[in-house]
Amino acid sequence: MKLSILLAGAASAALAFGQAFAQGERPILGFSPDRASAERALEARFDSDLSASDIRQRLELMAAEPNQVGSPHDKANAEYTLQKFKEWGWDAHIEVFQVLYPTPREQSLSLLGAQPFQATLTEPPIPGDPSTYRQQGGLPAYLAYAGEGDVTAPLVYVNYGMPADYEELRRLGIDVKGKIVIVRYGAGWRGLKPKLAYEHGAVGCIIYSDPADDGYATAEPYPKGPQRPERGLQRGSVIDMAIQSGDPLTPGIGAVEGAPRIPRADAKTILKIPALPISWGDAQHFLMALDGPVAPKSWRGALPFTYHVGGDQAAMVHLVVRSDWNTKPLYDVIAVMPGSREPDQWIVRGNHRDGWVFGAEDPLSGQTALMEEAKSLGALAKSGWRPARTIVYASWDGEEAGLLGSTEWAEAHDKELKKKAVVYINSDGNGRGFLRVEASYSLRNLVDGAAADVRDPETGVSVRQRGMAATDVRAAAPDATPEAKEMAKSQREAGQYPIGAMGSGSDYTPFVQHLGIASINLGYGSEGASGGVYHSAYDTFTHYERFGDPGLVYGVALAQTGGRLVLRAADADLEPFAFGSVASTVSGEIDDLEKLVSTERDQDQAVDRLLQQKAYHLAADPHERWGAPEAREAAPALDFAPLNAAVARLKASAQAYDAAATKPAPADRRAQADAILQQTEQALTDPRGLPNRPWYINLIYAPGVLTGYGAKTLPGVREAIEGRRWTEASEYIRRTATALDALSQRLDDATRLLAH
Amino acid sequence: MKLSILLAGAASAALAFGQAFAQGERPILGFSPDRASAERALEARFDSDLSASDIRQRLELMAAEPNQVGSPHDKANAEYTLQKFKEWGWDAHIEVFQVLYPTPREQSLSLLGAQPFQATLTEPPIPGDPSTYRQQGGLPAYLAYAGEGDVTAPLVYVNYGMPADYEELRRLGIDVKGKIVIVRYGAGWRGLKPKLAYEHGAVGCIIYSDPADDGYATAEPYPKGPQRPERGLQRGSVIDMAIQSGDPLTPGIGAVEGAPRIPRADAKTILKIPALPISWGDAQHFLMALDGPVAPKSWRGALPFTYHVGGDQAAMVHLVVRSDWNTKPLYDVIAVMPGSREPDQWIVRGNHRDGWVFGAEDPLSGQTALMEEAKSLGALAKSGWRPARTIVYASWDGEEAGLLGSTEWAEAHDKELKKKAVVYINSDGNGRGFLRVEASYSLRNLVDGAAADVRDPETGVSVRQRGMAATDVRAAAPDATPEAKEMAKSQREAGQYPIGAMGSGSDYTPFVQHLGIASINLGYGSEGASGGVYHSAYDTFTHYERFGDPGLVYGVALAQTGGRLVLRAADADLEPFAFGSVASTVSGEIDDLEKLVSTERDQDQAVDRLLQQKAYHLAADPHERWGAPEAREAAPALDFAPLNAAVARLKASAQAYDAAATKPAPADRRAQADAILQQTEQALTDPRGLPNRPWYINLIYAPGVLTGYGAKTLPGVREAIEGRRWTEASEYIRRTATALDALSQRLDDATRLLAH
Repeated sequence: MKLSILLAGAASAALAFGQAFAQGERPILGFSPDRASAERALEARFDSDLSASDIRQRLELMAAEPNQVGSPHDKANAEYTLQKFKEWGWDAHIEVFQVLYPTPREQSLSLLGAQPFQATLTEPPIPGDPSTYRQQGGLPAYLAYAGEGDVTAPLVYVNYGMPADYEELRRLGIDVKGKIVIVRYGAGWRGLKPKLAYEHGAVGCIIYSDPADDGYATAEPYPKGPQRPERGLQRGSVIDMAIQSGDPLTPGIGAVEGAPRIPRADAKTILKIPALPISWGDAQHFLMALDGPVAPKSWRGALPFTYHVGGDQAAMVHLVVRSDWNTKPLYDVIAVMPGSREPDQWIVRGNHRDGWVFGAEDPLSGQTALMEEAKSLGALAKSGWRPARTIVYASWDGEEAGLLGSTEWAEAHDKELKKKAVVYINSDGNGRGFLRVEASYSLRNLVDGAAADVRDPETGVSVRQRGMAATDVRAAAPDATPEAKEMAKSQREAGQYPIGAMGSGSDYTPFVQHLGIASINLGYGSEGASGGVYHSAYDTFTHYERFGDPGLVYGVALAQTGGRLVLRAADADLEPFAFGSVASTVSGEIDDLEKLVSTERDQDQAVDRLLQQKAYHLAADPHERWGAPEAREAAPALDFAPLNAAVARLKASAQAYDAAATKPAPADRRAQADAILQQTEQALTDPRGLPNRPWYINLIYAPGVLTGYGAKTLPGVREAIEGRRWTEASEYIRRTATALDALSQRLDDATRLLAH
Repeated sequence: MKLSILLAGAASAALAFGQAFAQGERPILGFSPDRASAERALEARFDSDLSASDIRQRLELMAAEPNQVGSPHDKANAEYTLQKFKEWGWDAHIEVFQVLYPTPREQSLSLLGAQPFQATLTEPPIPGDPSTYRQQGGLPAYLAYAGEGDVTAPLVYVNYGMPADYEELRRLGIDVKGKIVIVRYGAGWRGLKPKLAYEHGAVGCIIYSDPADDGYATAEPYPKGPQRPERGLQRGSVIDMAIQSGDPLTPGIGAVEGAPRIPRADAKTILKIPALPISWGDAQHFLMALDGPVAPKSWRGALPFTYHVGGDQAAMVHLVVRSDWNTKPLYDVIAVMPGSREPDQWIVRGNHRDGWVFGAEDPLSGQTALMEEAKSLGALAKSGWRPARTIVYASWDGEEAGLLGSTEWAEAHDKELKKKAVVYINSDGNGRGFLRVEASYSLRNLVDGAAADVRDPETGVSVRQRGMAATDVRAAAPDATPEAKEMAKSQREAGQYPIGAMGSGSDYTPFVQHLGIASINLGYGSEGASGGVYHSAYDTFTHYERFGDPGLVYGVALAQTGGRLVLRAADADLEPFAFGSVASTVSGEIDDLEKLVSTERDQDQAVDRLLQQKAYHLAADPHERWGAPEAREAAPALDFAPLNAAVARLKASAQAYDAAATKPAPADRRAQADAILQQTEQALTDPRGLPNRPWYINLIYAPGVLTGYGAKTLPGVREAIEGRRWTEASEYIRRTATALDALSQRLDDATRLLAH
């Protein structure tokens, strides 16, 4: 569709509803009622400076050349960003870190045997998209932090390469020891796939994009539609982020010039085996060569042949990956606007700037909107306004390789941040559609208020109303998932915009997971492009303007939303936290965990009964190889009493605090309460960290060890249960209860101050 | 895989279990305990004459040439069957009927426009399968009873062509009026697809086999594996079986020479528009030409491009179908072995003999096993045994076109059958795997007992144990469907082999649905071939021997099972019915219906709320065309009290009868009870029939008007609810309650006789 048609469609849709958008008259969290209208007037002035064409121009400029870490255009973009921040009146500088950043030296992948094939490993130009003819200096097919290697071995198809896939493989009687696996993107984070392959004994890993997941089976491929074409491939990092993010050689400390570094051989987050990403155009030759059992039903992708698992000599593969293990500079651009009343309370707002190639959607669509916020805040400041708290805007470098720029900055300034940062607000790629937010539960109320005051550019109602309508519609579908129903129930019960728990995958991780700073991650999306050119050379300005956000109207919506969150957090009388959501959400999660244990137990007993009866063998086709599940001891009863007691106390403390916070209080007491509130997310941390990954200290949400980006809530307890480590589960029940108690204590203290 | 490997695998699997198969010492329904061991000894003699190599030889012979109705080989097979029955000592004859049976005269399908394509409509020979080189005289791509036509129109893809698909199409803003639809096989019966297309205004219908459903996405295509290859296509009948089965010109009466016939124009079951079946090899050209919206996610098949819905001028299609509307003879072979004690109580056993082309699996795998039963029963008779009741074996003709041979025979002998038939036992295609049974609920106990005494050839345990293990394993899977769990629950609670309700799709329909004769349909399957060459010219002896039932061991298992059912029904002291299952199954179905109404009501209210809030429009992508569901008045409360009262009475009556039947009783009273029992299925009928289809009189199970083969239980009530015809639902609640009361009354009468 052409741009003009798209915009006409949007406009007429908005008219069709006949609903004029009216800014709410609701109170604003942290503001006294008499200050709310002044705040909204300020936000209207903020909005009036936001310009879609400025965002568009900036996006075209910044996405003009490949801009990965170490590229000339990455540095040029940093300098451009710095210059802009300064121009807009910010106190800005570039902070440089030196990190281990491998780049490809030699890589090849070939199928041996009767019908040999050499993988192309490249993304050819696409007529009509000039950027795709300008890939020089960009990265080819590459997985950063993959191991070195030159291996020849039989190929095995392992589906998404997740733990359940290896269990299925075991039942098929096939193992990957000494073999090379081919795995498709999806279902779990990229970096887990080669890691699990290595742990199962594989000597190499190929990751390909199956058209079932992001190619022709989902929508027309580029250039006819937005999706990944035959030769499109997904670059990415395979650093082990579940252990920690950031430079592998400086765990826990800022990678400044001269910082102590561990030897590369000791770095825990570098993959041990070679790995490469390929397109389905390349992958089909390898998959068609596979013999052995037909792949289980859920393993089959959308390529036009029968998928087999392989594992024998029928498909032998030669894989070579050699990298230069250089040190490269990261350029974080940091801009500060000091607070007038509380200069030592920081509101930090960030988005990364580096892409894998052109990075138009990921990350520049978010980065350019963030810059638009900074422009407008600068204009407000020039006209005389000053924030009560200090505002810090950050343009991170090196996110793609492992959240390098944000992590090194957070580690370099850890003590100051723990003391001063009130909230970290993140964004990343952006696009047409619905507001999606993951956040610390204590910030749900702030998010809900901002969403109610931003107008959706396509329908004219608030983004809050539109997003909540979408949640309700999803939950009412006859085939609604339990998760969709749960989300609708949560928004109905809370009367608030639904938020997700924080996992990982963008720059909030060092803040919320490692430092215990309350955080928000936001963005628009889920209409139009839906990730088809993610991490590909086809993520270009042309593609983004056609499919990502025609007219850049959601760029403006992101700036309006991010700007409101920053302004309200910076100017609120009392820091904009509310804790009812923390108590109710955690309470629901504890119930889930109790159910999880009893479901596991029932399942264990059912499997055991069937094993006793040889039912699996009787039910299996004797002409096929298919083993039974393994017998397991039934899950024991776990004592959740400490957690239940702690959350009961938290409910009461949260209710009391939330009520007290709405009453007027003297400024000095509010300032004292602020100091307590700023520490509430840290109350939920444990300095001993999560099992086997002490860098992650937040006990309420973490990226899953076996999901990668996906969040695990109450992770110490949940992952111990999922891994059937019952002693560890009991230990983390106690630790998590202690953390909840610490939060209750701080809330009680704040309530006393405010109610006095 | 080679045959030798397959058999070695099966043998070692049986050994691995270390479980010797022991015939049960359990009582046999209808036999006094002291007669059970004599009965088992008789069955052992019966088994000893069954021969896999005889079945194999017979199959090769009968499948050697195309054998559809009217073909020389169909007649030759009838004569061969007659001769064999006679040879085995049966009183056999051929009964001839004259039916309307159209055959193709002219047919073509082409895509017009810039990239024209002419559909091949043929199935080329397959190297290694000699039969496929001998298709002469066989039917090409054809749908029997399709309408005449020569139409040119735009093409629309309508997924499976079921009612929900047309609702989706409406929401996409596309209609099929004046257009030709292309629809894929699956989800509902073939004949519904063009019928619904016609009802929505379409002028033609193409049905194709998508590789997602029975091609390369499920297993390797033939000849490498069993599945439908690129040019494989599914012939079939599109006669409107939901109204009635049998010859369209003689509804309700036997189509004997000289019977009165209605004009063809008045025949209700003939389709009004032209229709053709094609392969995916042909279909891909048509599907790729489609423009318009991308097909909804669940509509996308496994072909390697983005599926669109079409509906505009981008894809214009020319379809021609002309048939010769001949009268053809049907040859039903009927063989009788008179009963010694109760000659007027008939046990009828049937399987059809006609195929679409070679018909090796469908139907000759079942037909040849049935003949093996007849051979062995003949041998028993020659050695002096005589059945107590009369046994009738039938080899039906013309099943494929619309259950013609069985229906005409049942209609021609309706009065006698209603009086004399105790049970009808059907089979059809057969294969490796698990015993699958649909049956009148009153026969579940009989089925369970026979299944316990047949040894599974692959594992060595009873087919009962193996099938129940498979049900348990399916239900214990983490992704088990509600139906799988329900089935496991049913077998656990009843302690009996699970049976399905009777829909349609084979020759039991005229007996159970039209005459009210208790029936069983049985067969083995679900391992190996899984329907990939169904109704194709590739359903050959070679294919069957490689994939269907290597070694014909499941042919023997079918003969053992069918033989036991016949022997036990023929020789039992008391007819082998039990009614506890009837009461408990119907009771569960009533609960389901009550839940269905309240779920509908909740859903109606939820949709209405969302419509009021304009939520569907807010949730939709304004760049795409996608309408909201239609508002509906909420489902009212229905009064189920009459049904609940009737089933409560039935539970008590059934319990009393089942207990009384186990006690010894004098022969004369048993004979009187038999006469009552023989009428129990007829108690469940209503001569007024089901709404708009008076030919169907069974109120407990029927093929669904909108499912085709799939059963609807308590169909008068259920389909009224699903169609939101509330008055009709209430009416059928009363009628069904009356039928249940009539059954209770008969059971009470029988109980009094036996307990006297």
